[in-house]
Amino acid sequence: MKAGGLRTPTRPAGDRPVRQASLREHNLALVLRHVGAAPRPPSRADIAAATGLTRATVSALVDDLIGGRLLTEVDPAPRSGAGRPAVGLVLGANGPAGLGLEINVDYLAACVVDLAGTVRHRVAHRADQRPHSAAEVLTRLADLAGAARAAADADGLILAGAALAVPGLVTADGLVRLAPNLGWRDVDAPGLLSGHPALADLPLTVDNEANLAALGELHAATADAPNFLYISGEIGIGAGIVLHGTLFRGARGWSGELGHVPVRPDGPACRCGSHGCLEQYAGQEAILRAAGLAGYGLAPDAAIVRLTELATARDRDTVEALAGAATALGVAVAGVVNLLDVDTVVLGGVYAPLAPWLRPTVEAELARRVLTASWSPVAVRPSVLGGDAAAVGAAGSVVRAVRDHPARWLAGAPDSSGGGR
Amino acid sequence: MKAGGLRTPTRPAGDRPVRQASLREHNLALVLRHVGAAPRPPSRADIAAATGLTRATVSALVDDLIGGRLLTEVDPAPRSGAGRPAVGLVLGANGPAGLGLEINVDYLAACVVDLAGTVRHRVAHRADQRPHSAAEVLTRLADLAGAARAAADADGLILAGAALAVPGLVTADGLVRLAPNLGWRDVDAPGLLSGHPALADLPLTVDNEANLAALGELHAATADAPNFLYISGEIGIGAGIVLHGTLFRGARGWSGELGHVPVRPDGPACRCGSHGCLEQYAGQEAILRAAGLAGYGLAPDAAIVRLTELATARDRDTVEALAGAATALGVAVAGVVNLLDVDTVVLGGVYAPLAPWLRPTVEAELARRVLTASWSPVAVRPSVLGGDAAAVGAAGSVVRAVRDHPARWLAGAPDSSGGGR
Repeated sequence: MKAGGLRTPTRPAGDRPVRQASLREHNLALVLRHVGAAPRPPSRADIAAATGLTRATVSALVDDLIGGRLLTEVDPAPRSGAGRPAVGLVLGANGPAGLGLEINVDYLAACVVDLAGTVRHRVAHRADQRPHSAAEVLTRLADLAGAARAAADADGLILAGAALAVPGLVTADGLVRLAPNLGWRDVDAPGLLSGHPALADLPLTVDNEANLAALGELHAATADAPNFLYISGEIGIGAGIVLHGTLFRGARGWSGELGHVPVRPDGPACRCGSHGCLEQYAGQEAILRAAGLAGYGLAPDAAIVRLTELATARDRDTVEALAGAATALGVAVAGVVNLLDVDTVVLGGVYAPLAPWLRPTVEAELARRVLTASWSPVAVRPSVLGGDAAAVGAAGSVVRAVRDHPARWLAGAPDSSGGGR
Repeated sequence: MKAGGLRTPTRPAGDRPVRQASLREHNLALVLRHVGAAPRPPSRADIAAATGLTRATVSALVDDLIGGRLLTEVDPAPRSGAGRPAVGLVLGANGPAGLGLEINVDYLAACVVDLAGTVRHRVAHRADQRPHSAAEVLTRLADLAGAARAAADADGLILAGAALAVPGLVTADGLVRLAPNLGWRDVDAPGLLSGHPALADLPLTVDNEANLAALGELHAATADAPNFLYISGEIGIGAGIVLHGTLFRGARGWSGELGHVPVRPDGPACRCGSHGCLEQYAGQEAILRAAGLAGYGLAPDAAIVRLTELATARDRDTVEALAGAATALGVAVAGVVNLLDVDTVVLGGVYAPLAPWLRPTVEAELARRVLTASWSPVAVRPSVLGGDAAAVGAAGSVVRAVRDHPARWLAGAPDSSGGGR
């Protein structure tokens, strides 16, 4: 153990102005959090009672938050008792919003999420991205971003920033180190996107798509500090690991590469250079191939729809293909659960619509292979988000940052008369 | 997200006495941490300079720590310059100590670790524990504990508590929920041990053996916030996961069951009820069986010594047995690294003496199967602790708690004239 780092000042609280400022920051976030979590629009008095802050302090904070469009007043619900009902407060529906962008192997997506977490606009472009260069893919994505941004502007929303989800390993400064299924290595996505007018003036972060989808799932969760493995089933398979309500990113930010967990050590070759990776058994293309649906030139989303139709009709090849994928998925996930002790597995991406057929087999493998399963079964459920969970999670991460740090937004925000930042 | 929990008091610092007390607690730990990390015994003046505390404060804290035997004064090194050299301070070698206990499938161990982390006594009893009931095993362990305790008493050490390592899943209150290789289910180890005089008056905690061994490895580590997977190779295989310098215990404390990660889904049956678990390929008994060393009635430690002799002599069956185990280990660990993004794998238990033969194959599997390995290879190294790493880690966890919270110890500690608590 090293000394240092933790030092106790001999003159505590010698810097009162800084502490006052941080108290205001803290309280702004506290008020915003309370409004966001309240079942009904609370009044200023409700907030004062719930937070322990004085009414005068709450009123001043609320005025600041309204000025920065983070809160909006709503008419009180009529009530029968005596006295004038108080004005309620809700998160600003025309305030800061997040732009979420997603690059996946067979689609691009963009969406706008407002402060309350509502998806206000979404746009997707379904096409195999593998034939195109990274620069071409990012140009198309910037076009989608421009369309989403125009829709946000028309709604009076103000974009606070953008977040990009990619199916690969990303460094802290947004370099895509490796995206095996796209064939990308060391792609400077922020640099390439900054040349496009739709994105030039927005702060942009880049993250792994399964991580961002898991964050979206976490923000939508009702449990207090959930533990789950979010599985993003696409052409590649990624995972976001949420432990005690926090996304676990690994030592260098490269955790969650579930698709490359070995299922059979001497199985088929994988694009990553290894053999027998989960992707070769349970990736979208492996499933379609096993079901006899590859090679017909079906668009990927149409192929998944067709797959669910055939599975519903109990087509034997389809049912067997899904059972094979679910077995491999269950084997790999059983290893994960034995190792990490998570209590819930969330099936995302194409696994969400396929969950009715995947879930029973995954559950059976977990029951058989997880050491704790006999007294504490693992819950398996489909994602609450749709197929563009990563784009929604990306946009959500932008508004979550505004909600967690409203003072930062207010410091640079336009006044309530509108306009850009 | 839920509101509540985080509330800002309207009257900050209204409870000054509590804050003063917690300041003293903090500063006692700070001084102790500084002495523990210093390369040479620091003087009171050195500590004041390094911590920013006043000399008077440091002197008062040091006096308290000496009174509670947490620090000892040592003669200053002679020096050539002018002035009287100051008295140096070291962690108390005759102060509080930790009693570490370990139950494993083929041995029992007890050890005493002093405040500086030095193993002062160790005693082990090598014998297969599986034929015996849990109560019998715990009685033998209590005998070992009594022997270790007598040795500690003779040295003038004061046991601050005991920690027990078991190869299984343990609840927060010390119930051994499941130890598959011992055949234990719901064994109340603290309850059974409390009836033995050697342990009746000591606070006892129970934890998974790989977790405690990983903590021992962490306390011995030189890096600031290391990320590693500690693998405890015994008859069972466990793992302790250290992320950013903290042991990761999972949602319910049952993480690290590496031995039951599937290597081949349809492989041999495992004691846990599943098939193809890592233990069936790389557990101690699987290795001895593959090397043709099972069934000769060799004691387990003698068998491992014989195995290393045969491996050194390049005996073909032995080399193949170790290569097979290493391949399975590499496959399972590759999945872990892809998932968790740890940068180091520590080979512990019997894997430590076998590391020269295991490491090259484990490294080759990791290089082949870990997505990030091409630009960021995973380090594989043997544990710095010996075969009783879990017992040492257990004892270390007791003294670590004293070092982290010296005020708690001082509140109940004997004066410097000696005696029990």
